[in-house]
Amino acid sequence: MRALVLFSGGLDSTTALALAINEYGKENVVALSISYGQKHIKEIEASNNIAKYYDVEHIFLDLSKIFEFSNCSLLSKNDIDIPKGEYKEQLDKTNGDTLSTYVPFRNGLFLSSAAAIALSKNCDLIYYGAHKDDAAGGAYPDCSVEFNNAINDAIYIGSANKIKVVGPFVGMNKAEIVKLGTKLNVPYELTWSCYEGHDKACGKCGTCLDRIKAFEKNGLKDPIKYEV
Amino acid sequence: MRALVLFSGGLDSTTALALAINEYGKENVVALSISYGQKHIKEIEASNNIAKYYDVEHIFLDLSKIFEFSNCSLLSKNDIDIPKGEYKEQLDKTNGDTLSTYVPFRNGLFLSSAAAIALSKNCDLIYYGAHKDDAAGGAYPDCSVEFNNAINDAIYIGSANKIKVVGPFVGMNKAEIVKLGTKLNVPYELTWSCYEGHDKACGKCGTCLDRIKAFEKNGLKDPIKYEV
Repeated sequence: MRALVLFSGGLDSTTALALAINEYGKENVVALSISYGQKHIKEIEASNNIAKYYDVEHIFLDLSKIFEFSNCSLLSKNDIDIPKGEYKEQLDKTNGDTLSTYVPFRNGLFLSSAAAIALSKNCDLIYYGAHKDDAAGGAYPDCSVEFNNAINDAIYIGSANKIKVVGPFVGMNKAEIVKLGTKLNVPYELTWSCYEGHDKACGKCGTCLDRIKAFEKNGLKDPIKYEV
Repeated sequence: MRALVLFSGGLDSTTALALAINEYGKENVVALSISYGQKHIKEIEASNNIAKYYDVEHIFLDLSKIFEFSNCSLLSKNDIDIPKGEYKEQLDKTNGDTLSTYVPFRNGLFLSSAAAIALSKNCDLIYYGAHKDDAAGGAYPDCSVEFNNAINDAIYIGSANKIKVVGPFVGMNKAEIVKLGTKLNVPYELTWSCYEGHDKACGKCGTCLDRIKAFEKNGLKDPIKYEV
């Protein structure tokens, strides 16, 4: 079996990468990093460092053009503040809409791009790091179990039954991912999750708060540096 | 309602565009043309001419980078002959595999890109021109009714229930599309279907043969010029 891993350089997808390497061996794993026009290149840098650490084939793709009409707050073209605080708090303010940090259909687009490349690279599986916390309350609808099942069906059928999507964490929260990754010796010090692109992680955005808590729940300290 | 139409400049997607304009009015229709690295720009030229004819907003996207590892015979980077003859004949030679003209997960990728853009452009629907003949015998698995239903689910869930995919022709053959399009006064003389990029359509590839037959079945003559 060969796996293509959607790999942003963040905590979740780095754990997914480690899991795939653990299962199939690094020679059967391809990491795919996709730029969507985010406000900084810290994730891209992190993904390069981690791919080197694991010595896996690493493909980079720029899909930012697709989001040129989006008003998502994560995009560099948009001069909109990225909200602080936990996702739950933020969701209470959206009137049932998605978060301003929802990149339109990002996971669907990234998984479809991965499917096209997986077919060309003779991979059987696509791994990605979506998890329960990101889907909770509809924060990111393309992270849910339901979405995972539906896109798996679409990719399986549309690839002539050649490619399956594996979302190993769709039923896990971030603390459980850190627990698993710690067993797998994931180099979390090399990962980048923060939505801001400062020298150190901000420690205030939704993804920083989530990450710090996930380590705390395991009795661990997040090894990266924070501004606060 | 507003519709984004996946629009290649070929016969099927031009009819889908005409149908959407007929339903929602041209001011509520956006046409999206995607380059995947095909061997010629005849389709792109055709799509420009037709979008001008209908006076609709027209977005162009280049996704050829995603297919850089593919050995598909339609790609300009691959020096492989495009097979002649009908799809059925060609399928008999593939040992149950997809055709050499199957662009890996193309429709899935194009519909996912369309979903991302549709969300940004306040569209509710995505139209695309997949039909029964293209799916027959597994020629293009991402043209089947099953695929259409699965990708519709994935896009609906992943877009927070905002976008639906409409494949108006998934239960029709090409002759039925021509019949419908003729009623809608589709300017078929402006369309381009041929896999080759010569001055005139080759008249020998799978898509040319299909198209000529579709007009004949309606007692019509295909208005474009052929080499043979």
